[in-house]
Amino acid sequence: MHLATLVHDDVIDNAKTRRGAETLQKKFGKRTAVICGDYLFCLALKCIESIPNKREYADIDFVDYMGKVCLGELTQHVNNGNVDISVFTYLKIISGKTAALFEASFFGGIVFCDDEQKDFEKYKRLGHYIGMIFQLNDDCIDFEATQELAKKPVQSDFDQGVITLPLIYAFEKKQDFKNQLKENKVQRSEMNRIVFEAGGLAYAHQTAKKYYDKSMRIIEGLNDTPSKKERLLFLLNKSYNGLKK
Amino acid sequence: MHLATLVHDDVIDNAKTRRGAETLQKKFGKRTAVICGDYLFCLALKCIESIPNKREYADIDFVDYMGKVCLGELTQHVNNGNVDISVFTYLKIISGKTAALFEASFFGGIVFCDDEQKDFEKYKRLGHYIGMIFQLNDDCIDFEATQELAKKPVQSDFDQGVITLPLIYAFEKKQDFKNQLKENKVQRSEMNRIVFEAGGLAYAHQTAKKYYDKSMRIIEGLNDTPSKKERLLFLLNKSYNGLKK
Repeated sequence: MHLATLVHDDVIDNAKTRRGAETLQKKFGKRTAVICGDYLFCLALKCIESIPNKREYADIDFVDYMGKVCLGELTQHVNNGNVDISVFTYLKIISGKTAALFEASFFGGIVFCDDEQKDFEKYKRLGHYIGMIFQLNDDCIDFEATQELAKKPVQSDFDQGVITLPLIYAFEKKQDFKNQLKENKVQRSEMNRIVFEAGGLAYAHQTAKKYYDKSMRIIEGLNDTPSKKERLLFLLNKSYNGLKK
Repeated sequence: MHLATLVHDDVIDNAKTRRGAETLQKKFGKRTAVICGDYLFCLALKCIESIPNKREYADIDFVDYMGKVCLGELTQHVNNGNVDISVFTYLKIISGKTAALFEASFFGGIVFCDDEQKDFEKYKRLGHYIGMIFQLNDDCIDFEATQELAKKPVQSDFDQGVITLPLIYAFEKKQDFKNQLKENKVQRSEMNRIVFEAGGLAYAHQTAKKYYDKSMRIIEGLNDTPSKKERLLFLLNKSYNGLKK
């Protein structure tokens, strides 16, 4: 399912490479890429359906998650270049486009595992939070990291009209800055400095920290083996620390 | 589901209008159109799932049909501009890209109707045949009709590299014609004349007639009310006669 969204993303962005390899869209054209994305989506649903006795949970919810991802992406697009976007709308967008996909993965894991006692709600929330952390971190990376370190283009969100939390927070602190940016009067290096000084990056990291703490409490409260908890903690820390060593 | 495929088709073809109205892709851009197509697909699956007690038939098969439509489209694309395409491959392509969608509609109708005795197999075959007839007719229209009558661009399949049955048959009858076409030595009006004289259009119509006769036999054998049979006959004739009065 994730692969299907990536293939369609590459069509939308006219992307030439993905994870260092040539994209379907570059290699075989838009037609093949759009339809292959649709086909991958079919294959994902077929996989889900093929699991015996588990259809009662799986079918409806996975389509719901896919719908949420689509709506998150559409809401982001509607707000493209909107410097007046609120923190609330931003969180709603990433809650759809990223956290819903993470939640679906966690939900899939718990649906398909053989444990007798399964706490669906806790696992779903944990997946959601880790998705939020991942996206907040990713949005900070766009400001903080080099292309070499991030292994993808950085300082590119704003150019593509994607307004993320560090910037939204800086706008709230410095109204002048927003106006200057609207008039194209700010250079990129200047923008990075202002976002940093206004505390935009710190705020985004703090927000991620809140989801981190909530996740920790869920993991601690799970009725699972220590080794399972350890692996969940590993995943959580990986999302939270991002490119940090 | 059909709407989802049309939205994606318009992205692929950079189409500006559809049924006389502006396309999503033209009005809101490629991003919105690709994701809206995905979202429509989700909505279609949600609709199917929401029908109580009917999920046991519906889920798996509708995703299968969608997969078949994708594979038909991909096979068509792989054979784009391939003047050596066989009748068999052509029939396989339209069997996916068009007939599978018709079959899905008929299957949907029979799944969701309240009759106690339902002959799934016959209805599915009938849907499939009517889809084949529709596409064969549509491919003839591209040669025979004016844009005004067809309400869409005509004489456009070949320019887009889509090699259809009238042409494939003409190639089989006149090897020289194929070679001349490969070397771009044939004007469009000349091509139309040769396809007609070689019997390509007659052959495509005959092929449609075979599916028509098979469909008639199915309708006659159905254990259904006369009024239902009459409506099926109406649909069949509409597909078969196309733009004919």
